[in-house]
Amino acid sequence: MKKIYLDYAASTPVAPAVLRAMMPYFSEEFGNPSNIYALGLKAKKAVAEAVRKITSVLNCAPDEFIFTGSATEADNLAILGAARANRKAGNKIIISNIEHKAVLSACKALKKEGFEIVELPVQKNGLVNPEELGNILDEKTILVSVMYANNEIGTIQPIREISKIINATRKTRISSELSEKKHSGHSDVFVDWGRYPLFHTDAAQALQFLDCDVNKLGVDPHTKRAPAPSAQDEISARYGVGVDLMTISSHKLYGPKGIGGLYVRRGVAIEPIIYGGGQQRNLRSGTENVPAIVGFGEAVVLAQKSRKTESARVKKLRDKLEKGIFKSIPKVVLNGHPTQRLPNFLNISILDIEGEALLLYLDEKGIFVNTGSACNSESLEPSHVLTALGNPYEYIHGSIRFTLGRGTTAGDIDYVLHELPPIVAKLRKISPLNLKLGKKEKISLPKAFIGGQTPHFLRKNEKKR
Amino acid sequence: MKKIYLDYAASTPVAPAVLRAMMPYFSEEFGNPSNIYALGLKAKKAVAEAVRKITSVLNCAPDEFIFTGSATEADNLAILGAARANRKAGNKIIISNIEHKAVLSACKALKKEGFEIVELPVQKNGLVNPEELGNILDEKTILVSVMYANNEIGTIQPIREISKIINATRKTRISSELSEKKHSGHSDVFVDWGRYPLFHTDAAQALQFLDCDVNKLGVDPHTKRAPAPSAQDEISARYGVGVDLMTISSHKLYGPKGIGGLYVRRGVAIEPIIYGGGQQRNLRSGTENVPAIVGFGEAVVLAQKSRKTESARVKKLRDKLEKGIFKSIPKVVLNGHPTQRLPNFLNISILDIEGEALLLYLDEKGIFVNTGSACNSESLEPSHVLTALGNPYEYIHGSIRFTLGRGTTAGDIDYVLHELPPIVAKLRKISPLNLKLGKKEKISLPKAFIGGQTPHFLRKNEKKR
Repeated sequence: MKKIYLDYAASTPVAPAVLRAMMPYFSEEFGNPSNIYALGLKAKKAVAEAVRKITSVLNCAPDEFIFTGSATEADNLAILGAARANRKAGNKIIISNIEHKAVLSACKALKKEGFEIVELPVQKNGLVNPEELGNILDEKTILVSVMYANNEIGTIQPIREISKIINATRKTRISSELSEKKHSGHSDVFVDWGRYPLFHTDAAQALQFLDCDVNKLGVDPHTKRAPAPSAQDEISARYGVGVDLMTISSHKLYGPKGIGGLYVRRGVAIEPIIYGGGQQRNLRSGTENVPAIVGFGEAVVLAQKSRKTESARVKKLRDKLEKGIFKSIPKVVLNGHPTQRLPNFLNISILDIEGEALLLYLDEKGIFVNTGSACNSESLEPSHVLTALGNPYEYIHGSIRFTLGRGTTAGDIDYVLHELPPIVAKLRKISPLNLKLGKKEKISLPKAFIGGQTPHFLRKNEKKR
Repeated sequence: MKKIYLDYAASTPVAPAVLRAMMPYFSEEFGNPSNIYALGLKAKKAVAEAVRKITSVLNCAPDEFIFTGSATEADNLAILGAARANRKAGNKIIISNIEHKAVLSACKALKKEGFEIVELPVQKNGLVNPEELGNILDEKTILVSVMYANNEIGTIQPIREISKIINATRKTRISSELSEKKHSGHSDVFVDWGRYPLFHTDAAQALQFLDCDVNKLGVDPHTKRAPAPSAQDEISARYGVGVDLMTISSHKLYGPKGIGGLYVRRGVAIEPIIYGGGQQRNLRSGTENVPAIVGFGEAVVLAQKSRKTESARVKKLRDKLEKGIFKSIPKVVLNGHPTQRLPNFLNISILDIEGEALLLYLDEKGIFVNTGSACNSESLEPSHVLTALGNPYEYIHGSIRFTLGRGTTAGDIDYVLHELPPIVAKLRKISPLNLKLGKKEKISLPKAFIGGQTPHFLRKNEKKR
């Protein structure tokens, strides 16, 4: 049977070249980088080389990068670390309401520590409105986190625009701070307001397809417009346009699992979340995972090399899949922004069916996809991202995420377009639902879809009424 | 040139069978265990199988075990997690003063959160005195952490004795609590004192050579005495004798780096330190590192199979090395307990020389060892473990740790015994020191050895005087 993996956003296979690069570090060059004899130094050198590879793509200095055990850990280190280290400056944190669960859950934990968390709703197309963000930035805000590209719908946020607004706030703060300082003369209680808010972005999904230069994030991948050169005045030179903290992931771009990374701009204070032997400038203790680090470095280089050609290739296939589905299946809705979107993402809601049922039928045909439906998550809750787009629960439960990758061929897409419509037809035949497209009617209680209750039973009851 | 690795306590090569077990999970079975299609389920099954292998050695239930990104993270999860989750019950934590830096540094972080940290000094032989511990346990104490076997001197702590004392405290608390409850009738503000103090042990170095059954830790590896059967009364049955939290490591026993684990006894509350998608029962979020988890499981099984034979084999070689050194080199001191010690550990101080110089000379001969000397650590401070044994700084700076492993042969030991004495003689010739064995005199200021200053310069000055 064919095996067609269309869930590259969940995880990717380790690329052969990446695995080859890792192999010597398991059983031969297995030294601990903390040690000063030959075997230790070789490991240390391998780590430094990987850092060099990654930071040259991020366009930052080697000492501005930290390896973590996952992108989730990197998000936690950014959010918990920056909040805890900067709480003297304020207690408010603003995030979008479609952030990765790592950011959302870390913020939930910070609430208990006395921080105020503001979740900025995205628009119906999944985009954050930078102006709206600007309106709620206040002097208590120390941190903003908006992901570069969303992991469910692939929507690309206007990071550069957000960064500009944040930078403008900093400038105002610096001015007011300077004049205040002049008048009061209290230089000893001086808080460097001009540093805030700090700006974090989760680029776990983005790194493979978008420019992740931390000083000029937010180039439109479709128009290929280069960003305007950053302002040359003193303050901009000091704080720049771009991000202060950025999360990246290895296993989303054909590197190994168990390794992620965090960019931390020089001068940005964060508190560690894991303490110990003082590795990685005391910010993330624990013996460095040398083979995984080497693999991550190699994976970033490979992805960077093929970024443009691979983006174009998968976009063509994705567009073919999208057109084919919309042509052959009625009552389908696209989730997220139609163009401001990663080239390999297609998230749709197929009305009147259940995502997990479709997923399992496709599984039988050797096609692996994902769904935002409740049964496919640890929490048994429907996707918070799709919920944030304002669609009714019925839409979310019929959601399917296709994410294409290096292994995807035109033949695969043909196969999916051949297999999918009859499965949808079969499922619709037995479905009690018959939604009207465009009406976005809510015919059942939200709680019927939350907490593992049986939606079938309730739906049947509702139909009878 | 020969390559003789005698630093197995720093890291071990991945065993061939372990690497073989891991290989399919990099590029073929690369699914994300959170997904419900075939590829995801296979990954999930592989993780479950590794959990089964490990927990059967620890003698605990599968849901009492959590994978982390390192043993350092596991220590942090245990210490930070248990302290933060149980702060209502008290704010005092007792640890030995020779704990791993992960435990020490996590405790330092807890101090800032309002916890009181008591460091119990070990005896000159490196052992914690369980009675002394018993004397300082009070009603505020919620957590005790004493490592199973030390990572620098290999000294094995009387974990079972400590566990008995902790259990006795719990029993007293339960009794007083029950009578108090009877009198006050305030069952709603009832704190379950009988649970405290919780007991954590770091078994990162121990798992390879000692019985790590969480319900009967502390079997003497030399006398092979089995532990007395645990008391059968109701309270003991409820709380048992043993540990509540135990850290284990993969890359210390021929498994891959980047993976560790924490045993958490059922009913023991801990707070996560990494939040997110809710993996591992919400206690450690992040995509599971499937290949590393599979490798860890295999490594634990292999180590368990050869535990007794390999212990005996390396002990014989270690004893040969120890006897040979003491015979051929004068003024050598053994650090740590002579018998209550892991069979592969030999930590000695060779007086009048500097550990890092010896280490580099040995490196030239292809012999890789470790030292507790200041220059070999991230912090540039001499080993806190050797300092805790009460030796002067000069002893610590001449310290060398040999740790033997699966690759060590009798020929290796012969080679070391042949190469070591002339190097020591050469270094002593140029050394300004001439300590008198047994006097433990302090001839220089401690600060001469701390913070990267140049001990040579100061020593020369002192000699001139």
